[in-house]
Amino acid sequence: MKDTLLDGSLEAAVAALRARTVGALELTEAALARIERREPELNAFITVTADDARRRARAIDSGRVPSSLAGAPIALKDLFDVAGIPTTAGSRLMATNVPSADSAIAAAVFTAGAVNVGKTNLHEWAFGVTTDNPHFGPTRNPWAPERIPGGSSGGSAAAVTAGEIFGSIGSDTGGSIRIPASLCGIVGLKPTYGRVSLRGAIPLAWSLDHAGPIARTVRDAALLLQVTAGYDAADPVSVDVPVPDYLAEIDDGVRGLRIGIVTGRFMERLGPADRATADVAAAVQAAVDVLAGEGARLEDTELPRSDELQTTQLFVIGAEAGAFHKDRLTAHRDGYGADVARRIDTGLTRTGTEYALARRTRDELRRAYAMVLNEWDAILLPTTPTTAPLRDGEDAVAAAARLTAYTSPFNLTGLPAISIPCGFDTSGLPIGLQLVARPWAEARLLRIARAYERATRWHERRPS
Amino acid sequence: MKDTLLDGSLEAAVAALRARTVGALELTEAALARIERREPELNAFITVTADDARRRARAIDSGRVPSSLAGAPIALKDLFDVAGIPTTAGSRLMATNVPSADSAIAAAVFTAGAVNVGKTNLHEWAFGVTTDNPHFGPTRNPWAPERIPGGSSGGSAAAVTAGEIFGSIGSDTGGSIRIPASLCGIVGLKPTYGRVSLRGAIPLAWSLDHAGPIARTVRDAALLLQVTAGYDAADPVSVDVPVPDYLAEIDDGVRGLRIGIVTGRFMERLGPADRATADVAAAVQAAVDVLAGEGARLEDTELPRSDELQTTQLFVIGAEAGAFHKDRLTAHRDGYGADVARRIDTGLTRTGTEYALARRTRDELRRAYAMVLNEWDAILLPTTPTTAPLRDGEDAVAAAARLTAYTSPFNLTGLPAISIPCGFDTSGLPIGLQLVARPWAEARLLRIARAYERATRWHERRPS
Repeated sequence: MKDTLLDGSLEAAVAALRARTVGALELTEAALARIERREPELNAFITVTADDARRRARAIDSGRVPSSLAGAPIALKDLFDVAGIPTTAGSRLMATNVPSADSAIAAAVFTAGAVNVGKTNLHEWAFGVTTDNPHFGPTRNPWAPERIPGGSSGGSAAAVTAGEIFGSIGSDTGGSIRIPASLCGIVGLKPTYGRVSLRGAIPLAWSLDHAGPIARTVRDAALLLQVTAGYDAADPVSVDVPVPDYLAEIDDGVRGLRIGIVTGRFMERLGPADRATADVAAAVQAAVDVLAGEGARLEDTELPRSDELQTTQLFVIGAEAGAFHKDRLTAHRDGYGADVARRIDTGLTRTGTEYALARRTRDELRRAYAMVLNEWDAILLPTTPTTAPLRDGEDAVAAAARLTAYTSPFNLTGLPAISIPCGFDTSGLPIGLQLVARPWAEARLLRIARAYERATRWHERRPS
Repeated sequence: MKDTLLDGSLEAAVAALRARTVGALELTEAALARIERREPELNAFITVTADDARRRARAIDSGRVPSSLAGAPIALKDLFDVAGIPTTAGSRLMATNVPSADSAIAAAVFTAGAVNVGKTNLHEWAFGVTTDNPHFGPTRNPWAPERIPGGSSGGSAAAVTAGEIFGSIGSDTGGSIRIPASLCGIVGLKPTYGRVSLRGAIPLAWSLDHAGPIARTVRDAALLLQVTAGYDAADPVSVDVPVPDYLAEIDDGVRGLRIGIVTGRFMERLGPADRATADVAAAVQAAVDVLAGEGARLEDTELPRSDELQTTQLFVIGAEAGAFHKDRLTAHRDGYGADVARRIDTGLTRTGTEYALARRTRDELRRAYAMVLNEWDAILLPTTPTTAPLRDGEDAVAAAARLTAYTSPFNLTGLPAISIPCGFDTSGLPIGLQLVARPWAEARLLRIARAYERATRWHERRPS
């Protein structure tokens, strides 16, 4: 029964925990058993903190304070500090980096009653999309172990997909929450820039980094966003905007809402080999039909200045990642994987002029996108142009360019974006639908995603 | 009588114009006559647009629509576009740059009924503080023609001080509104970053540039801010924050307001030769006593991370100015003055890494300063450590480092700051008092400045 609960929603688990149908320790033991069973294949975790999890679960079982997560097992991507446990950021150079304080994210989920069962695997330093980690081994896609789970939050997505945990908090600098959610057939939400504190998180690129939930249902993602969103003066880019009740309108449906279907140059700017496959395009078209059937008003729309997106993102991420890694890469080049070292080396060649122009272009893009988004409740497009690629033979840098093409523009522009499952390709691999809204409109995004989810069964299908 | 009006406030001129005691054309002719008389010495203007001014004045005289500036003569710093008139930015390379549309600033003041009599001189490309312009000649300080008026908005400040115009809009990237206001004994206000649109203004450094009023009284500055403040979607860094009525609380006094006196490392970080002179320190101390006498509660305060300010400002301004000028400087090096070319050359050496770290440090400083400002209605310090230096013998780059030391931190942090006259040194040169408030609190700043002004007579003293 506990094991069955593991494949249900976080929300159902919280209900069972609150009703004391199951105890936090019982459920934690079930999760730890699932982890023990699945990890040899999946390798979704860098660190499993069984004793710490049991301690937290016992405290919750013996406590009387109701909390919103009520003892449900989760795990954090291994670039968020949890006091007393190493934060590796997916690098063996950080194996002895044991923080003394919780990150804002960790403090928030612990306060909400989550039981942390470990730290999940990621692309080294979060700088890539394969999660083929040279230090801690590759995470495998639960749908097809020879395929990547996406990244950089690949461990989080694989663990959530396989029912090892009910949810995770990942980070997203160019798509690192949404891409693995897409390739694993689950839900990933990148909130508005500044919505969730990054205090105590290891940066990839300060001006593009976002933290957000990875979960199996839209309501679960809302629940995790609810406990982690909010202003934090200690994060210099956290923004003081009121946090709404994300569940208040989530089941209100889409009747009358206006949704723009992204078409034109934005979708076509990649080489023909890198565009959305026929399976992906068909699944997204079917999703359009579902939303229309639910009463949404859908029309084609275009996004401006598409040819400037890739360079701007590359220059910003390159200069900022270069700034963070320069000294360490110089001192410990042999401690870096080849693809990450190559990307940092490229970043280090950026001049101040190039980065300054990229920052200015980014300010302009942010405004231009906001103007478009003001016209719509959300816009809609695929999350990734393809389903999960094979791990072998995939070049990590090329994969990043292709798989981030539809996601990274919303890091540059700081807009909230969600990926939800919308079908399967002819090989049985999941396809992700991406919805994007205006700044701070996560609640609207969740409402549309939830309406789609309610009208479909894709989220119920799990890998065998 | 018209000539006497020219030495009064903008507010008094507007009242006279509304009462039809004087006509817009009459007052404009008086201003043009004053300009003709004073320009041979002052050289405050790059372009005088007499015909255009007369045309606008006639239209106002014949119109029936009341407007807030009612036909008062003003002039814009020559980096704000006015349709049909060259925008030189103080460079002869731009002598044929004739815009077809008004800048946001120009459109705003024209809509409010201002009569533009010309474009004021500035430090070449706004990149310096002497306004010793190699192409259009030096602007002279109305208090002492052998001295600099400060800059880069030196022409605006000299013209306002000499009664050639009632007010001007300048720009401020490291102090370019406040420094000339301080050295000329008038009022200069740099609003919060994003408060006034920079559409149609030639940039110096996008992330540090601010536009704001230069005037002879605090209420006049408020009047000019009122007509220019507001969100503009066409300026990508304009922020959508409601604009209050800046005159509503301006005369409410300072009883009970908390004002922090900046002390410690922030004031001491410069070399001993570059710190506030005894005259400046004494005048600021006397201002503290005046404000205390008016009922304000004043206490010492310190600002954080003072040793990081200079480098951060230099790296940001250097990389951004470098980005804007790189191609032009390469193609037309002989069209640049020596000091500006030297500063751009230095800016071009900045790496992407240096600029990225500076931007991150700046985000942290902005938050750290906001935390301090949350404790105070305003903080108080000198605007410039010295009064106006002699033009000859002054190295422009060294002058910029010294004269911006107390102003540029509030460009980095985007905080609103005002300079008001607070006395004279033993040579009879004006001294400026600077007040700084939390983001968007220009109204509070104006109220404190106005209370001080009302309690003193410094603003009434004019150069002979």
